[in-house]
Amino acid sequence: MRVEVVTVGDELLLGDVVNGNAAWLGRSLADLGAEVTGSVVVGDELEAITRAVTGALRRADVVIVTGGLGPTYDDLTREALAALAGVDLVRDPHLEERLRVRAARAGRTLVPMALRMAELPEGAGILPNPAGSAPGLRVELPGGVVYALPGVPHEMRAIMTETVLPELSARLGRTRTARRTLRTAGVWESELAARLAPVEAMEGVRLAYLPSPGEVRIRITATGGDAPKLLERAEAMARRLLGPVVYGAEEETLERVVHRLLAERSATVATAESLTGGLLGARLTDMPGSSVTYAGGVVSYATRLKHQLLGVPADLLAAEGAVHPEVAAAMAAGVRDRLGASYGLAVTGVAGPDPQDGRPVGTVFIAVAEPGKANPVVRAPNLPVPESGAQARGPIREMTVVHALDLLRRILLGVGTGPDAHRWGEDREEAG
Amino acid sequence: MRVEVVTVGDELLLGDVVNGNAAWLGRSLADLGAEVTGSVVVGDELEAITRAVTGALRRADVVIVTGGLGPTYDDLTREALAALAGVDLVRDPHLEERLRVRAARAGRTLVPMALRMAELPEGAGILPNPAGSAPGLRVELPGGVVYALPGVPHEMRAIMTETVLPELSARLGRTRTARRTLRTAGVWESELAARLAPVEAMEGVRLAYLPSPGEVRIRITATGGDAPKLLERAEAMARRLLGPVVYGAEEETLERVVHRLLAERSATVATAESLTGGLLGARLTDMPGSSVTYAGGVVSYATRLKHQLLGVPADLLAAEGAVHPEVAAAMAAGVRDRLGASYGLAVTGVAGPDPQDGRPVGTVFIAVAEPGKANPVVRAPNLPVPESGAQARGPIREMTVVHALDLLRRILLGVGTGPDAHRWGEDREEAG
Repeated sequence: MRVEVVTVGDELLLGDVVNGNAAWLGRSLADLGAEVTGSVVVGDELEAITRAVTGALRRADVVIVTGGLGPTYDDLTREALAALAGVDLVRDPHLEERLRVRAARAGRTLVPMALRMAELPEGAGILPNPAGSAPGLRVELPGGVVYALPGVPHEMRAIMTETVLPELSARLGRTRTARRTLRTAGVWESELAARLAPVEAMEGVRLAYLPSPGEVRIRITATGGDAPKLLERAEAMARRLLGPVVYGAEEETLERVVHRLLAERSATVATAESLTGGLLGARLTDMPGSSVTYAGGVVSYATRLKHQLLGVPADLLAAEGAVHPEVAAAMAAGVRDRLGASYGLAVTGVAGPDPQDGRPVGTVFIAVAEPGKANPVVRAPNLPVPESGAQARGPIREMTVVHALDLLRRILLGVGTGPDAHRWGEDREEAG
Repeated sequence: MRVEVVTVGDELLLGDVVNGNAAWLGRSLADLGAEVTGSVVVGDELEAITRAVTGALRRADVVIVTGGLGPTYDDLTREALAALAGVDLVRDPHLEERLRVRAARAGRTLVPMALRMAELPEGAGILPNPAGSAPGLRVELPGGVVYALPGVPHEMRAIMTETVLPELSARLGRTRTARRTLRTAGVWESELAARLAPVEAMEGVRLAYLPSPGEVRIRITATGGDAPKLLERAEAMARRLLGPVVYGAEEETLERVVHRLLAERSATVATAESLTGGLLGARLTDMPGSSVTYAGGVVSYATRLKHQLLGVPADLLAAEGAVHPEVAAAMAAGVRDRLGASYGLAVTGVAGPDPQDGRPVGTVFIAVAEPGKANPVVRAPNLPVPESGAQARGPIREMTVVHALDLLRRILLGVGTGPDAHRWGEDREEAG
């Protein structure tokens, strides 16, 4: 089954909005096992929409159009589909009634223009919209079937998930593709790929690497007669080869894993940050319920505050500057103690663009103070620093947050945190 | 001049990467005053690329292709252009030499495959790539001119900015479009639009609203014989109508403005945060050099830490809970005092998804402690809360950061901070 995507909207064409719908649709269709033949963006013009759909039907059996189904007069997808099918637009009484009920419930008057959303090309199928006003439409044309969906992302996704994807799946017969995403931290893409060569060599298995600062998501795709079984074997092999480098799967974020591990131990963490300026605390509080396991933190951005607020010895700061392993250790112990948390997690380093205290951009020290241990664990991750110092600042801060959370995760799990832990994982010998 | 964009890459088609290049190109071309006729995404297939370029040339005079210029065998844009022009690929000795020099400088060996990047369709023009290995190409075809650029975003942007946009601008003759972006904080899009109706009514002037949590960028576009003059008049009128709601223009971020105002006064700020968990500090340290004016902060996430670290009276916390205007005031005064900064900026509130201390999701108090004033200024912004509490958390945290920075900005500037300040600006009477 070949599918082509047409996204409609001046705001997409002129780059006011990045085309997240096209990306989401591409991913969903590929996940389903369909072949995506192309993706076209057109403005809010009748002729451009009809031309794009006609062209797409030459290459594909199914065309998915998003956008142009709203109430205003620059919403022209309904007109385009009616023209392509050679039929009139008719008003559907049930859709009209639904619009009236929705408006009344929201305490709004239904303006006449809104009734355009109750119109459809004669003979078109209606795809219920659980999240908004304009329904999706299904129009059968000689060259194939066209699904038209609203451009509002959560409405488009809802209709796709509830109606279109199941219909397409049924057309495809039983699933011949299965996918799974593993999440890793602290290891570069090229090193992951080298390690996963045996998985890559499995027949019917493909790997895609999706990097973000400090992390790489690995998408495993299995195709063929028994795709789910094949996927299971590939995933198991990948997990064995990567060991504790894999911290989770699918939508399980690193901070979620850390919170879960803390909660399982009835423990809390407090943070002390310099170069990240609050990013570490922000990420730990990104999810609901984080107050159970996150106590709070100190952003000791000015060097003097490391002494004042965290008790880092003034003579150490005077002798070594703010970027030093012992400073990181004292910050972790200080914040654990002063905030009354089970664990103290501290970062200090040079985000750039200029060196600090004689240390180059990208120098970072991370420390974890643990209950019942006198000395904090300190690690210095080896961060790739882009050529231009000015552009390095953002990625260095984000990578520091990932490495810090990952060090805490490894300590909570009791797996390796040695200097090589973030390059190869701890079980290198065992796995190779 | 009509321009169409073709972006090449399986990763774009399958949604592994969101198509930021297409958005950037659309915006740049629109800014130039060109008409963007469409934007097409194709996979790494020779036939798909030639078909897309051929189709684009039917509608446009200029086609911009990105992607498919790298060294690997799935990079096929060079082959597609040679086929379209009916010529062979030839290797350019200067390009080859440049590749060898680059490789040697990086201490790498030049693999044979890399020499593909020195090939071009016979007769094609070379567009220097200041940021990477593969140059851009200019190919004149009967239907129009095709520019091919690498898909790596910063390389594509560098070649566009240095070569392609100036060439297109010269083709267009003198500029007939001028644009300017104003940045506003704390006022909703619909209210800005109501206030800017007189600007919208100016002949040849268009306004576009680009919202992000708590902020709206307003893009003013003037077209016609004397676009720059017209733009100047439109901008002046917009600034008069909006008053201090406009905090900056173009790439001048809110935190940059705050740092500048602090630096001009030789002042510093310290932050105390609860619901934002460190986001406020993170945003203030996002730019280089922020240590001059940002001292540091406290993330008092657990309620007890508001007393322990910031000196918020324990009986106040016991009686009123953590989300209360007096708590915000005590946090601001406490952090200013304990961190030795000129200003204290504090936020407390309910990010959701659940209510806290009897306060609904979206309740936020912001306080600023000033030098030489006994009582901090406290404000409660009126934040729009999405229907679903689970989705509200992110936007509420981001809006809180924007409102906090904007309150500090207004106090530093000495303009209004009254309860209506964030809805209509202070000079409502004067402006209306």
